[in-house]
Amino acid sequence: MLGRDAVEFPVAVVLPAAGCGERTGLSTPKQFCTFLNRPLISFTIETFERIPWVESIVVVVAKESHELMLQIIHQFQHAKVKVVEGGTTRHRSIFSGLQAFSESAEGPVLPRPKVVIIHDAVRPFVEEDFLLKITLAAKEQGASGAIRPLVSTVIATTSEGFVDHSLERTKYRASEMPQGFLYDVIYQAYQRCSEFDFEFGTECLHLALQYSGTSAKLIEGPPTLWKVTYKRDLAAAESIIKETLSLSACLISGAMAETIELSNRLQKNLESHHMAVDVIPCTEENNERLLKTRNFIQISTSGASLSETEEMVKVFEESKHALLYPVVIVWVHLRMSDEASDIQTNDELTAIMDLSMKVKQGNILLYSVRIIYSKVPELWERSIARLSEITMSLVRDRNPVLTGQMLQA
Amino acid sequence: MLGRDAVEFPVAVVLPAAGCGERTGLSTPKQFCTFLNRPLISFTIETFERIPWVESIVVVVAKESHELMLQIIHQFQHAKVKVVEGGTTRHRSIFSGLQAFSESAEGPVLPRPKVVIIHDAVRPFVEEDFLLKITLAAKEQGASGAIRPLVSTVIATTSEGFVDHSLERTKYRASEMPQGFLYDVIYQAYQRCSEFDFEFGTECLHLALQYSGTSAKLIEGPPTLWKVTYKRDLAAAESIIKETLSLSACLISGAMAETIELSNRLQKNLESHHMAVDVIPCTEENNERLLKTRNFIQISTSGASLSETEEMVKVFEESKHALLYPVVIVWVHLRMSDEASDIQTNDELTAIMDLSMKVKQGNILLYSVRIIYSKVPELWERSIARLSEITMSLVRDRNPVLTGQMLQA
Repeated sequence: MLGRDAVEFPVAVVLPAAGCGERTGLSTPKQFCTFLNRPLISFTIETFERIPWVESIVVVVAKESHELMLQIIHQFQHAKVKVVEGGTTRHRSIFSGLQAFSESAEGPVLPRPKVVIIHDAVRPFVEEDFLLKITLAAKEQGASGAIRPLVSTVIATTSEGFVDHSLERTKYRASEMPQGFLYDVIYQAYQRCSEFDFEFGTECLHLALQYSGTSAKLIEGPPTLWKVTYKRDLAAAESIIKETLSLSACLISGAMAETIELSNRLQKNLESHHMAVDVIPCTEENNERLLKTRNFIQISTSGASLSETEEMVKVFEESKHALLYPVVIVWVHLRMSDEASDIQTNDELTAIMDLSMKVKQGNILLYSVRIIYSKVPELWERSIARLSEITMSLVRDRNPVLTGQMLQA
Repeated sequence: MLGRDAVEFPVAVVLPAAGCGERTGLSTPKQFCTFLNRPLISFTIETFERIPWVESIVVVVAKESHELMLQIIHQFQHAKVKVVEGGTTRHRSIFSGLQAFSESAEGPVLPRPKVVIIHDAVRPFVEEDFLLKITLAAKEQGASGAIRPLVSTVIATTSEGFVDHSLERTKYRASEMPQGFLYDVIYQAYQRCSEFDFEFGTECLHLALQYSGTSAKLIEGPPTLWKVTYKRDLAAAESIIKETLSLSACLISGAMAETIELSNRLQKNLESHHMAVDVIPCTEENNERLLKTRNFIQISTSGASLSETEEMVKVFEESKHALLYPVVIVWVHLRMSDEASDIQTNDELTAIMDLSMKVKQGNILLYSVRIIYSKVPELWERSIARLSEITMSLVRDRNPVLTGQMLQA
């Protein structure tokens, strides 16, 4: 990361998450809505936790969510987080968060940072390079904030509900998050601001300007900064994360000529759909390569047992590889003839179903696909094409309901 | 619809769709991006076409999209649409659309409406009751427009990129679509406006005010009015449509005691997941009830043929029931014992796969689920729970890749 070394001062984050999220139309506040087995707020926390120069993260929650938040932190092993209880408005909550760094009767709870980043719990996609820009600008100018172009025209309305005038779009920007401040600048602003500000103010940049005389540097951010506001935004966020998770896979080809040939064909098809595929012959001594992706396609032939899959699962469990994101394993079973052996098929199906139920608790999603070798080139081609489609779809959808199924390519 | 009768005057719609949509990050303009086998713009057209008091819809496209648009209209049998070629800016395109109703050398192409609604091709979710409000207000006041509260604070920036001041949120609104105008008001505004307006203006309401002296009545719209702008919005739109399609299903129970019992259990489970389920014993003489939903769950026992499914497919094909939205059929196969009959299973699998491939071209998605009866109550309970989960998931996801598969409950 270019410039990461420039952060030679302590940086902390405050994440206000005490809102009730009535705009999603859901009963759960949106920061606690879950997808891929994890609440939205944990994705946002993870984003900051991965950044080495962020020292601590203060999450401000409503009293009734305190226990839930502690449980989330425990379950997903977030290490840099301190939870504090918020106030009745956004500004009171942010101030509560900032107070965690200041003196109390027993001294400060957390070491006071030079720069504090204020972000929203419901904007999970902020990236390190943008945070770096915000942080360095805050250090230099005292305050900084993300902006975006206006998507809609903004109009002033008359008291009777008619259009008065519309604003010139080029002179105005939407103020977004994250914002960065010298800790002293924003803390002083909150100490000096009025009850009216605490109750009705919406904009930290405005407080810094009015009460600390600091005019924030504005930096245009990427569209991914958007705020999860409505129910549809949850679907959008889930889709973005699933797409990111599907960008690569590890293909375990087996050692037989037939499985290697199938593996090569499958690799080619998946790569033409923008999935980077790392091929290894077997899982043994490949633990490091296994931990580079969360998608695995394992090719085996008739009579093969699931023992290699079980070994792989052990590696994931030991390394907590599925803690934050579900791991997908697609067990591809190549049959060299279509002579039916029913007992064998049923045994396999039972074994797959049992194993899939066992590993699902550990966030590992196991599916199987059966492909029957054909000497007729067109049939074989069609099966490989279908195998590729099914594999892409299983990896992309990460559907927990379909684990343990044996699909037919 | 309350008040629908109040529209005793001709109403037409102009849909500008000549933009190139660079903000989605996709090479296809967003109005032509496809989900559920249909381009976004066709969903928007359908919304207006369903409204009886909308007489005609003028879609304005770029020259290079003209052929594609005609093909979409043909494929999805849109009947009220006229396509015209647009200009280089949004305002030029809207003006081109309006000109379709005015005199030309050969007379007007379409009858001139009293009120014209201007909407965006990329806002597919506008509802009739809101369009009615916009239309009646336009008739009364000359102009009307949808507004939404501002999601972000709007700030004025200095030329050096610092914050100057933030706007008081309560006095401003985001101007959205649809907007409604007396045809004469907006046509006159475009005839009088300047080249600068054509090039840089963004707001029809502003032109009506400046060139026709008409101040628009502003009406707050629902959040679903939002504009598909980024790639993530496509995922959100698809999710909304899939959710709406999953609200009801028709369950074909069969006539045997075992299938009826299973059907009752399944109905209860699905209804507890907010899916309204209409149960019928068989498809015969139930054509009307079949056409009330796009999801079908058919329960049958061993030895049953797919002939009833084939009959149902015929009904859908004749009534074009799957023209606009994919129809889902889940064929549930109840086996009374787990004694394996492999040849039978393989035959069934082949029959399902073949039929699914045949009907898929007609936008009918056929899946199957096998459930084995157990005398052990816990096992039977678990199988029914899994059948319910799988059925919900197949209906909800409408995944074309999984058609023809036989899943195991």
